[in-house]
Amino acid sequence: MQTVSKQVPLKNTTVTGGFWADKQKLNREVTINSVYNRFKDTGRFDAFRLDWKDGDPNQPHIFWDSDIAKWMESAAYITEKTPSPELEKIIDEVVDLIEAKRWDDGYFNICYTLFQPEDRFTARYDHELYCAGHLMEAAVAYYNATGKDKFLKIMCDYADMIEKAFVTEKWAEFESPGHEEIELALVKLWKTTGEKRYLDLSKHFVDIRGQECDEYTQAHMPVREQKDAVGHSVRAVYLYCAMADLAAAFGDETLFDAADALFDSMAKKRMYITGGIGQTCVGEAFLGDYDLPETSSYCETCAAIGLILFAQRMYAIKPDRKYADIAELALYNGFLCGLSLDGKSFFYDNSIEVDLIGIKNPHDNRHRPFYPITQRLEVFSCSCCPPNVTRLIASIGEYACSANENTLWLHQFICGEFEDGDKKISVETAYPECGKIKITCKGNFTLALRLPSWCRSYTLNKTAEINTDGYIYIEVTDGEVIEYNLDMPIRFVQANRMVRQCAGRLAVQRGPIVYCAEGVDNPLPLRALFVDPTAPAKVTKDESLGVTAIELDGYIQPESDELYFDFNDSFTEQKIKLIPYYAYANRGETDMLIWLTKK
Amino acid sequence: MQTVSKQVPLKNTTVTGGFWADKQKLNREVTINSVYNRFKDTGRFDAFRLDWKDGDPNQPHIFWDSDIAKWMESAAYITEKTPSPELEKIIDEVVDLIEAKRWDDGYFNICYTLFQPEDRFTARYDHELYCAGHLMEAAVAYYNATGKDKFLKIMCDYADMIEKAFVTEKWAEFESPGHEEIELALVKLWKTTGEKRYLDLSKHFVDIRGQECDEYTQAHMPVREQKDAVGHSVRAVYLYCAMADLAAAFGDETLFDAADALFDSMAKKRMYITGGIGQTCVGEAFLGDYDLPETSSYCETCAAIGLILFAQRMYAIKPDRKYADIAELALYNGFLCGLSLDGKSFFYDNSIEVDLIGIKNPHDNRHRPFYPITQRLEVFSCSCCPPNVTRLIASIGEYACSANENTLWLHQFICGEFEDGDKKISVETAYPECGKIKITCKGNFTLALRLPSWCRSYTLNKTAEINTDGYIYIEVTDGEVIEYNLDMPIRFVQANRMVRQCAGRLAVQRGPIVYCAEGVDNPLPLRALFVDPTAPAKVTKDESLGVTAIELDGYIQPESDELYFDFNDSFTEQKIKLIPYYAYANRGETDMLIWLTKK
Repeated sequence: MQTVSKQVPLKNTTVTGGFWADKQKLNREVTINSVYNRFKDTGRFDAFRLDWKDGDPNQPHIFWDSDIAKWMESAAYITEKTPSPELEKIIDEVVDLIEAKRWDDGYFNICYTLFQPEDRFTARYDHELYCAGHLMEAAVAYYNATGKDKFLKIMCDYADMIEKAFVTEKWAEFESPGHEEIELALVKLWKTTGEKRYLDLSKHFVDIRGQECDEYTQAHMPVREQKDAVGHSVRAVYLYCAMADLAAAFGDETLFDAADALFDSMAKKRMYITGGIGQTCVGEAFLGDYDLPETSSYCETCAAIGLILFAQRMYAIKPDRKYADIAELALYNGFLCGLSLDGKSFFYDNSIEVDLIGIKNPHDNRHRPFYPITQRLEVFSCSCCPPNVTRLIASIGEYACSANENTLWLHQFICGEFEDGDKKISVETAYPECGKIKITCKGNFTLALRLPSWCRSYTLNKTAEINTDGYIYIEVTDGEVIEYNLDMPIRFVQANRMVRQCAGRLAVQRGPIVYCAEGVDNPLPLRALFVDPTAPAKVTKDESLGVTAIELDGYIQPESDELYFDFNDSFTEQKIKLIPYYAYANRGETDMLIWLTKK
Repeated sequence: MQTVSKQVPLKNTTVTGGFWADKQKLNREVTINSVYNRFKDTGRFDAFRLDWKDGDPNQPHIFWDSDIAKWMESAAYITEKTPSPELEKIIDEVVDLIEAKRWDDGYFNICYTLFQPEDRFTARYDHELYCAGHLMEAAVAYYNATGKDKFLKIMCDYADMIEKAFVTEKWAEFESPGHEEIELALVKLWKTTGEKRYLDLSKHFVDIRGQECDEYTQAHMPVREQKDAVGHSVRAVYLYCAMADLAAAFGDETLFDAADALFDSMAKKRMYITGGIGQTCVGEAFLGDYDLPETSSYCETCAAIGLILFAQRMYAIKPDRKYADIAELALYNGFLCGLSLDGKSFFYDNSIEVDLIGIKNPHDNRHRPFYPITQRLEVFSCSCCPPNVTRLIASIGEYACSANENTLWLHQFICGEFEDGDKKISVETAYPECGKIKITCKGNFTLALRLPSWCRSYTLNKTAEINTDGYIYIEVTDGEVIEYNLDMPIRFVQANRMVRQCAGRLAVQRGPIVYCAEGVDNPLPLRALFVDPTAPAKVTKDESLGVTAIELDGYIQPESDELYFDFNDSFTEQKIKLIPYYAYANRGETDMLIWLTKK
């Protein structure tokens, strides 16, 4: 198998303006500090001192190493682009603590060291390797950002120790990690150090899966035989990332095909229109094909992130808009919804529909269905999502492009500068608010522009054909300015007929953005609003939220004193205001609906 | 307040054929015996021996007195019309046991006598008075059926004892019954014995409610101030029955107005299209206005029965089709669904929609939503519904007519003979299969015919105006034959816009019958079937079920490989087969849907 291109790494990218520069500024100035403060408050940073004792507040939790690791990774990305001695100081302090407190054999884990040092690598579900993986990712990011290698070396030692425990000496009491993550981290460690044993260790962990008969951790069958995305959704997509990485590293076509099938399983059968995945709270897991309940959606923010990480790997390996389209969908909707507009609070699970009457109904303990929280929080007891949000925003530049010797692919329309060798582009755009993209090229090369599948018409100041992969390939010369205009009308979207929840209903999208109706803007119940896909619809602005809004000429059934009555086709005109899904729940608790009833 | 008419009692009615004669035959030949056998198997009859001891199987339950009481009441109605020495023998044996085992002061209760004799009337929620009430109803029915007064006298003694405990001596430790029932039973005892103290005791129990701050038992405010149907739905409708009875007995207009408001609260805001009430399993209770969840509907069969009992009282007191229409709706749908077509098994809770994918989804203990059972059972641990079904079918004749000196009202189109003094009618009809009703009159009087609100056109072989109460009043002469033909087209029904669950969806009705689609007859998912209210629809017959069926020229979305795609108006034609809701779940576990998606 031939890898078509490689991702243009963060260091070769600069976000220069537009939508994502704003988000990065907020991330740098608000979010990273807010997450730091909450992690400080809750004892997560202090836990690295390994001096917690019975009776102290804030007993360390098995996930905490990874929470701080992701925060450090985020801070590394931030300081790489906007140097911050303050952030570096925090990271250095944590690294010093890890160095001081790690075991002689290289092992580091807060809870196991404190509470059950004799039980290392005995409990498959205890997240030791998951935490290790996140620390490795942080170490790689920090090394790339600053050139400081202390953290990286510590994590190499740890990786070596893990190799012994699981491969050479085989004293670990399980074989595959209970929560995937280290597999993709080891690939990064290999790429950064050049030490192939880390790649091999990753391959070992991926290849050995399938003996546990455990669907929840994707260990129900060998990964190359897996066709359906099942089990815990974040675990799943982290594994799929590693599968893509290893397929590329080893030219393993079977592994790539398995990853592709799993991508399709999600994208074509098990994904909300927001790019959210993992339909049920039970095990934070996938449900079956086309089963997409709304008020009880789970859609963990980390799962949307993992889907983006996975899709990005796939579109670099083999550019195809099917991957980049889904990455974009998840990015602007399922992922971005996880963060409040003020940058301070987060959704862990994300609603597809908020029905406050249903949520507030009386339920006994046995029959309380799951509903996602209706308002974002600053921190959670399991707070994996907040630092995952900050790290994706901080590293967003590397989602834009991939390249090979001759060609530079522009997958995501991010305003910025991207270069690979002697190929460089400057992208100027107000995307996703509008579809006008100006690309100034430096060098002579082939530029591949994604034509999103949602786009029905576009203009380009060069003549070019659309390739079957969904990209437009054009030869550019040094200094050439490409003007690419994607028509971005308001679109009414329907679901596959097998999605029983969406029958007779339409979602509204414009460009990659999915819109929703909120109770604060519209009469209740939201489901009683009817949309006519042929009626006028206009793009407006919600100044208070600072987002693009949509106003539809919709309808509502007339009021009636009767509960049931013979059908009549009478409707009253009713303006319907929609805002981007990612902007919902920023004005207090209110109903929210994506799938509107079709007139 | 002037009571307009009085119900024509069972003794003055004979069901002579048609739909209800078939049901009564099944009830007499199958259901009454099946319920008897299950109650015998489970120790309910033997419990009246009061010899259960630790270690024995079938420990008596607090509800059991009432289960057998309702069975005896049913058997009494049956034997009144079709004398059955076998049924009488069983009743006599139970009565002998009650006589032998009751307390010297007249008290009888299986569990309290066996387990906590010192605690009588100390626990408001323990159903002592509920059981007593059902025994009183049975005693009245048996006296009316056979003229034997032993049971009636026993229950009069018990009522006298209760009056002492709660009124005269006031040693009972609560004031109002925790489960209403005795209130309406005492009215029956008064009507049968002429002893006004029973009526007064009923009034006492109704008037004293409201000090407990307990919405669940309708004791949150004085009954005359209650406007919304709240709390446990069976409790509620049994109370409302007594309110209607007392309003009539005392000419209490305020009480009637409260009952009327509570009726409207249910019929106009808190009732499923089937006449099912009590939306939630939590407390088997009402939810708020217009909140009618489908897959988690509760709709206890006893609640539909209670609604019919209440509506019947209201339409006798003040004939208005709003009451009789709802009684009819609940009778042919929410009630009748509770019984299998073979007469042997029962629903306790009734689904409005069966979505097997949703039901079979994984749920943890905390997040398992309530779903009604999908298949009827012969007996339940709390088996109130089965004998309640048999008693309503056995006494169906008395739901047909009410009368005053000059007028006979025909409320329900039941094939039979009904008389009040010198006014008599013979009704011949295949209703509800067709709307043709032939009424042969004996005597000279005013005949009032309900024009159901679902009926848009009718013919009558006499000229007459429709009264504002929804009845057609005609003067008839001895021997006159009235031919009343109700047009019974297939109708598409929509719900009030506030019912968020039903937006964009239509139910199909013909006459009083609500239809549904079952998975065994139609492609899945049922929600993906689209109906066009302007398209052809025809009435057919399902021979295997022996019921009228409907075939619609409907639609289904074409298949697609995509999960989400731009709206297009393409549909494939798809025949949709509907059967009466009451006949669903007679062919194994399958999906079921009433509210179909509107094209």
